Amino acid sequence: MSIITLTTDYGLKDHFVGALKGKILSEFAEATIIDISHDIDPFNTAEASYVIGAGYFSFPKGTVHLIGVDLERNKENQHIAIEWNDHFFICADNGILSMLTQKILPQKMVTINIHDRFPTDATDLDVFVKVACHLAKGGLLNVIGKEIKNIKEITELQPVVATDGNSIKGYVIYIDHFGNVVTNISKKIFVETAKGRPYEIILNKNVRYQNKTNIKNIWPKYSDIAVSEKYPVKYYEGDKMAIFNEAGYLEIAIFRSNPNSVGSASSLLGLYYRDEVTVVFGK
Amino acid sequence: MSIITLTTDYGLKDHFVGALKGKILSEFAEATIIDISHDIDPFNTAEASYVIGAGYFSFPKGTVHLIGVDLERNKENQHIAIEWNDHFFICADNGILSMLTQKILPQKMVTINIHDRFPTDATDLDVFVKVACHLAKGGLLNVIGKEIKNIKEITELQPVVATDGNSIKGYVIYIDHFGNVVTNISKKIFVETAKGRPYEIILNKNVRYQNKTNIKNIWPKYSDIAVSEKYPVKYYEGDKMAIFNEAGYLEIAIFRSNPNSVGSASSLLGLYYRDEVTVVFGK
Amino acid sequence: MSIITLTTDYGLKDHFVGALKGKILSEFAEATIIDISHDIDPFNTAEASYVIGAGYFSFPKGTVHLIGVDLERNKENQHIAIEWNDHFFICADNGILSMLTQKILPQKMVTINIHDRFPTDATDLDVFVKVACHLAKGGLLNVIGKEIKNIKEITELQPVVATDGNSIKGYVIYIDHFGNVVTNISKKIFVETAKGRPYEIILNKNVRYQNKTNIKNIWPKYSDIAVSEKYPVKYYEGDKMAIFNEAGYLEIAIFRSNPNSVGSASSLLGLYYRDEVTVVFGK
Repeated sequence: MSIITLTTDYGLKDHFVGALKGKILSEFAEATIIDISHDIDPFNTAEASYVIGAGYFSFPKGTVHLIGVDLERNKENQHIAIEWNDHFFICADNGILSMLTQKILPQKMVTINIHDRFPTDATDLDVFVKVACHLAKGGLLNVIGKEIKNIKEITELQPVVATDGNSIKGYVIYIDHFGNVVTNISKKIFVETAKGRPYEIILNKNVRYQNKTNIKNIWPKYSDIAVSEKYPVKYYEGDKMAIFNEAGYLEIAIFRSNPNSVGSASSLLGLYYRDEVTVVFGK
Repeated sequence: MSIITLTTDYGLKDHFVGALKGKILSEFAEATIIDISHDIDPFNTAEASYVIGAGYFSFPKGTVHLIGVDLERNKENQHIAIEWNDHFFICADNGILSMLTQKILPQKMVTINIHDRFPTDATDLDVFVKVACHLAKGGLLNVIGKEIKNIKEITELQPVVATDGNSIKGYVIYIDHFGNVVTNISKKIFVETAKGRPYEIILNKNVRYQNKTNIKNIWPKYSDIAVSEKYPVKYYEGDKMAIFNEAGYLEIAIFRSNPNSVGSASSLLGLYYRDEVTVVFGK
Repeated sequence: MSIITLTTDYGLKDHFVGALKGKILSEFAEATIIDISHDIDPFNTAEASYVIGAGYFSFPKGTVHLIGVDLERNKENQHIAIEWNDHFFICADNGILSMLTQKILPQKMVTINIHDRFPTDATDLDVFVKVACHLAKGGLLNVIGKEIKNIKEITELQPVVATDGNSIKGYVIYIDHFGNVVTNISKKIFVETAKGRPYEIILNKNVRYQNKTNIKNIWPKYSDIAVSEKYPVKYYEGDKMAIFNEAGYLEIAIFRSNPNSVGSASSLLGLYYRDEVTVVFGK
């Protein structure tokens, strides 16, 4: 099986996504094409970075991930293809993949250098399609690019462990469909810093009654908040809570929240993209 | 062919749906995966119930329908898989399927009992994927669950035939993309109660000039409202009308309505989820 | 490979699109089904016309394009199937295809005449599915319809070249996901009229300082606006610009615009559907 996934900011109203699939099938009729998202906020490479990082690992090894966000080649951004954690990724070198490559070193990275083999009216997307199909068919990276040692990094959004080791300052990096708030505090950094100590998650340093708004538990899954045998699950609806989500990040949620009606963690707790979330460890 | 359909409240912005498909393809590369909807109102089991009930029968027998709405297993809701009308359905036992099973008895129902065979970091969705692939490959229900005789029922939204048999009181159960208003009055209950008598559909009991707002015809299809040879079809645009929709339910519509511009049956007639719609039969 | 593409105004919330795919797979299990768009503005045949015209040519020859917009057969609109530019199109004869057939003559056109072979509860969509699968399997148009010589035309939205040949008056025909404004001025008519002369694109005749709002360059691709070596690409974000888009039409854009935050060409320049855009040629 040869899977090509698509992550773009093209939206679903226009013909763009359909046309992209048509181009892939014209080049490689046997490709299995799966949408990861086409609703990335336009040109938002940080959001694309989170979504592809959270989605890729559910696919089989060898899957090719085409990322169509801010993909035009220009004097600053080359086109790159990398092999990382046994998956392939194709995108512009605009920092999208640095969130992945900071965790694990890539197996191979190339700058795509086949642009001059295309007709003059070919688009950057045509190049991506050609590379994606080449890789999905089992082709080598060296055939379509020149090996490189570094790609662009986005570094501004790293969580910071205090020098005394007693707290982690993180940031909101993503708000999901349910309005749940994803921070950049990974389970790994949390466990390494906590060393088994109790903790408190401080959502907003400016709130007066901290003890009322802080969260002192991280549950394995949402429904685990319904701890008491006395109350039905419904009793807990609307309670704020924290979990480590599937992508491995600390997430602040409202149990069974519906952003269309009662509100979400983001709207109810006033937590938005790039807001600070801190974990403080006790003794 | 092995089809697995997906009906969830995950939305299309995040990686959730793509990741779900990646998991299915990792388990069963030959599966044909079809989206029914991912825009179910979050945790709205009634809406999920209508959409799966309206969508399933267009698929071949043997299709597996995975329903990812309020799916976390908790002390109240087990995971179930049922065979019904020659289709398979997998969901949490939260009432979603009762709208189907009230009409036709299931062929077999099981509580899924394979959770302890998964690694500790597996999610409830991983269990659903395993069961869906097992069934899509032709596996038996008994292998993945223990037979049960009953599932949870949602009963609040049943239409009521008056004791004198002269009216049916129903409710709005769904508003579709066009703003058309779907009631829970089925064609079956209508025909059985009408016994050929004339009828009037009362949309709002509080409106002063009932005769102006009531509907006295149910058309076979939308375009049938354009009855007169004198007028073009365009003449009828914006007229309110009733049909029995493909799912077999009485639907109130505005002919060629565009909710983005002129408005829809829901907005123009003030009919919303759970509002009452009554059919009165004459002599 | 047998590809069937879908372009509808059904939206993605309801079961409609999933059910349509279920019907196709029931009839032709090997079909590859690709969505072009399901977010056509309801009953907007002009929008459907643009989207299918912009999307079809990325697919292999022989692809079958099913268009489910305003598809009900009525006393005015028959169902048609046409072979055009080695692709097949199925729709109601409501003008949707006239934007294509005005450019290139169809190879064959038929009025679908198999409706009486269906059960009485079959829908118009069932007929489309049957025809689409027939054609995707390599079936002939004559088997499912009667040859015709003309289809309905929408003519109101043609660009007009001034009698002195010194300007082209066009209209906005589409606003895309990024808020970019697509006009009906094709590259072909532009090149033929320009004859190498300089030009100015006048976006709004009522603005006082024309020279500030007019556009004097049409770039090959978006990133080409970043011409200066002195400034980074980011410097150009928010600048208005023009390109010929992939579908071959003059498009007014804002470089890296995000309609969710800073605004788009449509909102910032006040250009909406059917607004006039004129190109004036110099000496």
